[in-house]
Amino acid sequence: GSNPELGGFGGSFDLEKAGYKNPMLVSGTDGVGTKLLLAQKMKKCCDIGVDLVAMCANDVLTHNAESLFFLDYYACGSLTLDVAREVVSGIARGCKMAGCALIGGETAEMPGVYPTGSYDLAGFVVGAYEKGRDRPLPCLEEVIPGDVIIGVMSSGIHSNGYSLVRRVVEISGLELNDPAPFEEGKSLVLPLSTKTGESLLTPTAIYSKLLLPVLRSTNQIRAVAHITGGGIVGNLKRVLPSNMAAILDARSWPLQSVFGWIASVGNLHTDEMLKTFNCGLGLCIVTSQSTADDVIMKCNDALSSINLKSYKVGKVVLKKENTESVAVNHLTEMLYKSYSHKTPKLTNGIASGDHG
Amino acid sequence: GSNPELGGFGGSFDLEKAGYKNPMLVSGTDGVGTKLLLAQKMKKCCDIGVDLVAMCANDVLTHNAESLFFLDYYACGSLTLDVAREVVSGIARGCKMAGCALIGGETAEMPGVYPTGSYDLAGFVVGAYEKGRDRPLPCLEEVIPGDVIIGVMSSGIHSNGYSLVRRVVEISGLELNDPAPFEEGKSLVLPLSTKTGESLLTPTAIYSKLLLPVLRSTNQIRAVAHITGGGIVGNLKRVLPSNMAAILDARSWPLQSVFGWIASVGNLHTDEMLKTFNCGLGLCIVTSQSTADDVIMKCNDALSSINLKSYKVGKVVLKKENTESVAVNHLTEMLYKSYSHKTPKLTNGIASGDHG
Repeated sequence: GSNPELGGFGGSFDLEKAGYKNPMLVSGTDGVGTKLLLAQKMKKCCDIGVDLVAMCANDVLTHNAESLFFLDYYACGSLTLDVAREVVSGIARGCKMAGCALIGGETAEMPGVYPTGSYDLAGFVVGAYEKGRDRPLPCLEEVIPGDVIIGVMSSGIHSNGYSLVRRVVEISGLELNDPAPFEEGKSLVLPLSTKTGESLLTPTAIYSKLLLPVLRSTNQIRAVAHITGGGIVGNLKRVLPSNMAAILDARSWPLQSVFGWIASVGNLHTDEMLKTFNCGLGLCIVTSQSTADDVIMKCNDALSSINLKSYKVGKVVLKKENTESVAVNHLTEMLYKSYSHKTPKLTNGIASGDHG
Repeated sequence: GSNPELGGFGGSFDLEKAGYKNPMLVSGTDGVGTKLLLAQKMKKCCDIGVDLVAMCANDVLTHNAESLFFLDYYACGSLTLDVAREVVSGIARGCKMAGCALIGGETAEMPGVYPTGSYDLAGFVVGAYEKGRDRPLPCLEEVIPGDVIIGVMSSGIHSNGYSLVRRVVEISGLELNDPAPFEEGKSLVLPLSTKTGESLLTPTAIYSKLLLPVLRSTNQIRAVAHITGGGIVGNLKRVLPSNMAAILDARSWPLQSVFGWIASVGNLHTDEMLKTFNCGLGLCIVTSQSTADDVIMKCNDALSSINLKSYKVGKVVLKKENTESVAVNHLTEMLYKSYSHKTPKLTNGIASGDHG
């Protein structure tokens, strides 16, 4: 539906050509936080555009909306063409993965606001669902005790918590070019010698295009939470009615060892991990008990192309007074396990001992 | 049409409720450039949000599209609530002036990217026109020799060229709190003692809501150019067919003295002024000869609430080989006049002589 040739002072998009007759528009804007600083330090900005699109498109997905088009804002101290080209090519690749058109953007050179070599990125996506055909999500009034929480694996840290990540790297004494002491995100097949900085830059998974058909295939999906800043607790809470709570069991999904490494090296309390990081789950889907297995199967089919999986990770219960809306049991244990069983790798020569 | 209560992970907008059945979406993104630095230095950020909305909404207007909703990205080193509140209230006011809904936004705290006290802003707007009812603009194939260029006054410098403006302030030796040696934007009734910095922060005029009914009232509008970075020449050129040129006469509209001051103090060539600043025109409308007077009358009616006017400023001609697409005659003279006739004011006590 996009018409980039129209050009001029903005981008156009034809909703009819995209198959919408009575659309509700859903729009989101986001940045990638201080993951940018890591990318800039590593001089590896090829994937930061994927992160940018992911942050926006996954938000729109939570409304059962298809990401239609994207615009970016790229602001820098002084334009370095190579960097800009790399960033924008990542954005274009991200848009392809998200199934949306890159119809415009703004490049701003602002000496005095950004130091030379520094830049910031903001993304903006517009999506739609068809009224009468697609269920508006979240559908809080349908959530009932016994509903299942399906967890969709993240590809790694995604794009939140990087101020803390950078502090942890500092504490660890590791250089960004040193081999990573943790396993990379499960979605990536990287050589064992992956650099710490590179591994930490694993791009955010883009679920929108892959999972939208799953969400639209049943009327039993109650809600989808995109796990961003605020972590599992902060984001899952937003899609639960105030009288319901969710109980998750961290033993039910594979937790990437990077989270164990962060918790261990940073000496972080499980609660802080939960509030800051996705802890292995990029999305949580709330669905009825009867359809959960089917939804998981469909999700796994859809996610196989990006090497991710989904799991039954918890359930909805009636919220008792003075209890948390979201509890994640056994996370401390799983954080410990995710990293500690990597110890042999560490003692076999790499950075053992000197990263405490 | 907006539904901010849905909240959660993005904002929703109902096109049907906004009166669109077969809409073409038009979207734009922009920032306010280094005008931000001036606002930060003056600690006066109440209007910078108006600038942000203006830059986006005026772009969308050029497509004959109504601005429907807006999202902002606010990124800073560390959040100062007072400043953020002031900025966002300006954005909300701008949205009201543009006739669009503020349905969401992102506030990012990024220490390390932005120094403390510094921030950047990006805006995103989505607009629409109804296919079959509203003409898509620009309509380049209809532009013919003899067509009239209507110039719509700017409120001042708007939001482009501020790196140069800041350099000129430096050269002038003026402090931002010194009384302005030039008259403020015509749209503002400010006391004579207006500070230089304040006057330079005169917010960008928002034309979208006021002029959309005018653009939609006739089928004789060929194109609208929003005069931003690149000035009159760069932006008007974009809406002319390659075999046509525009000739403007700078004596036909009132040029604010701030432009004369910039040219004089900065010792800038007229060509550089033309490429950098709007030089008094915020929009150029290309229309047929027969409707020009009527369009001007309607524009003036619509613009009276913000104290601006429109003028017949030029015409379309066949482009001769090796000539410019856009020529603005008599600008040097008008730049000189706009500022030099203010000399009496200067010699009557303020900052005479010492700002060369």
